Amino acid sequence: EDVDNQKASLKESDDPFANAPKRHPALMVNQAKPFNAETPLAIITDSFLTPSDLFFVRSHLPIPDIDPAAYELEVGGVGCQDITLSLEDLKKLPKHTVVSALQCGGNRRLEMKTRKNLKGLDWRGGAIGNAEWSGARLVDVLAAAGFSEDKSPEARHVIFEGLDTDPANSPFGASIPIEKGADPRGDVLLAYEMNGEPLSRDHGYPIRVVVPGVIGARNVKWLGRIEVAEVESDSHWQQNDYKGFNPSINWDNVDFSKSEAIQDMPVTSSIASCKTDPETGDLLLSGYAWSGGGRKILRVDLTPDGGKTWTEAHTLVQDKARHPRHWGWTLWEGRV
Amino acid sequence: EDVDNQKASLKESDDPFANAPKRHPALMVNQAKPFNAETPLAIITDSFLTPSDLFFVRSHLPIPDIDPAAYELEVGGVGCQDITLSLEDLKKLPKHTVVSALQCGGNRRLEMKTRKNLKGLDWRGGAIGNAEWSGARLVDVLAAAGFSEDKSPEARHVIFEGLDTDPANSPFGASIPIEKGADPRGDVLLAYEMNGEPLSRDHGYPIRVVVPGVIGARNVKWLGRIEVAEVESDSHWQQNDYKGFNPSINWDNVDFSKSEAIQDMPVTSSIASCKTDPETGDLLLSGYAWSGGGRKILRVDLTPDGGKTWTEAHTLVQDKARHPRHWGWTLWEGRV
Ligand SMILES: [Mo]
Ligand SMILES: [Mo]
Repeated sequence: EDVDNQKASLKESDDPFANAPKRHPALMVNQAKPFNAETPLAIITDSFLTPSDLFFVRSHLPIPDIDPAAYELEVGGVGCQDITLSLEDLKKLPKHTVVSALQCGGNRRLEMKTRKNLKGLDWRGGAIGNAEWSGARLVDVLAAAGFSEDKSPEARHVIFEGLDTDPANSPFGASIPIEKGADPRGDVLLAYEMNGEPLSRDHGYPIRVVVPGVIGARNVKWLGRIEVAEVESDSHWQQNDYKGFNPSINWDNVDFSKSEAIQDMPVTSSIASCKTDPETGDLLLSGYAWSGGGRKILRVDLTPDGGKTWTEAHTLVQDKARHPRHWGWTLWEGRV
Repeated sequence: EDVDNQKASLKESDDPFANAPKRHPALMVNQAKPFNAETPLAIITDSFLTPSDLFFVRSHLPIPDIDPAAYELEVGGVGCQDITLSLEDLKKLPKHTVVSALQCGGNRRLEMKTRKNLKGLDWRGGAIGNAEWSGARLVDVLAAAGFSEDKSPEARHVIFEGLDTDPANSPFGASIPIEKGADPRGDVLLAYEMNGEPLSRDHGYPIRVVVPGVIGARNVKWLGRIEVAEVESDSHWQQNDYKGFNPSINWDNVDFSKSEAIQDMPVTSSIASCKTDPETGDLLLSGYAWSGGGRKILRVDLTPDGGKTWTEAHTLVQDKARHPRHWGWTLWEGRV
């Protein structure tokens, strides 16, 4: 028995994905290693704030297991002194809370695949969720490092590095434009809470970046380093993934260097459930709608006949934040 | 002869539109009184900055004739002391310059009319232009009146009143959300120059508001008063015009109170010219593209076959301003 246990333990330690947290059984798993799973559409509109354990998980590398007492965040780069902040240091900065949806760049790819041959995980419509995030503001952390946009006009990007690493020990990385990172109205957070609780390991414990309105891939989890720079992150995910192209580009002719990294996400609206009203025969629909860039949803239009006639969703559930800092999603209900 | 002259002069003085400035003969006139005219598509892409005398004119009321020495701008409302600024006072504030396109909310309506029965002026694609605007920043003028967003969280809108009036002596009016008006990155100007010259009468002499990225109707000309308020402008043009609706709303069932006033304009891209390359038979296309909200155009996609295949415009001409403060239009050229 001991020998068997030892063997199992040896085998596990060879697998960088072995030390994974427990997940909610209702999550729909698209990939086991690295772990990628989404919220089922059948329950996605059940609550305005998505429960953290049902919130989609997008990971590119093994999930790190970080000792909060040993955690350190490095900050440096253009216009910054090099500083190191502990978790306690971050919690001493003013605590800022935003309701923000977070969406994977590949959300709804399974629907897109009905129109075009695409590579990538088969996300249905559940690679989006909405949460209340709390933490320190990126602008306050940059100020703590002495950074000021006025004094460093050559600063162009804020690079984030995760503590998750690939087999060659390279971390996950991404960047956002300085126009977003240094704007107090951009609401970029170094979050330590999700829905009022400490982040779970799957969602970036102890610190993740929340870049409201911006593609999930820039919302770096297990944040290890922030660097202000004249150039974007040189990571694979910034340079050779998560970009947009004209519809005739495919994997044979794509040149990633010719296209800009996706930041703000475009508008999306998805039907999550559809029932028939037994009395009237009407279709009763519900779903979510969201736009990146802080743009508030004003209306959800529904058509039962391919666009000949339209009606408005009768109910919109939204956060009170005002446009253009309306980062949360809109749940809607309608009848056609 | 004297009697005839007197008669003519009396008759003219009855016509509030009589004292109108001279206009460039190339402008395409959609309405004589009030004067509404657009840039011909055949020349709209000839220069990145649209010459002021060829820039579309949208007026709702007679064009005022303002003595610059007597000009006064009133500023007041929530969180403001009442102040009055002369043209010289405004010119003493820091001079700020932005390149910004300006587009009428009705631009391209003639194209839309091929799909739906619509009311309104038959604008082709020329009710848009691009200019370099210089003037005082709205945030500096609000600060001069003592306004600070932090001290007045109840402030919600900035109302603008023109010095142009209807027969009942009501001025043209509009408002923008405080989130745009009080944001230094919003670049809202009280402009006194267009393309390096004083504004012409048709474009708002001596002062017009330029609200980059926002529908033309809020860019109030001949500015007479600024008021910070808890409510929007109660003008006809803010309340009962320039709103968006779902496609099944028409003039018989519209309820303007149910819809929000348009602010940021959506993306548009228009083909302005199309020639055949005599050597290859290719179509050589040019046009403009623009998005409101400071969103920079990254790409213009062209299709010769109704969407089966796509190619990118090979040339984009743009201002150097960075997203999301890229207010100018993009001129493009392509070949399909
Ligand atoms: Mo993603
Ligand atoms: Mo307009």
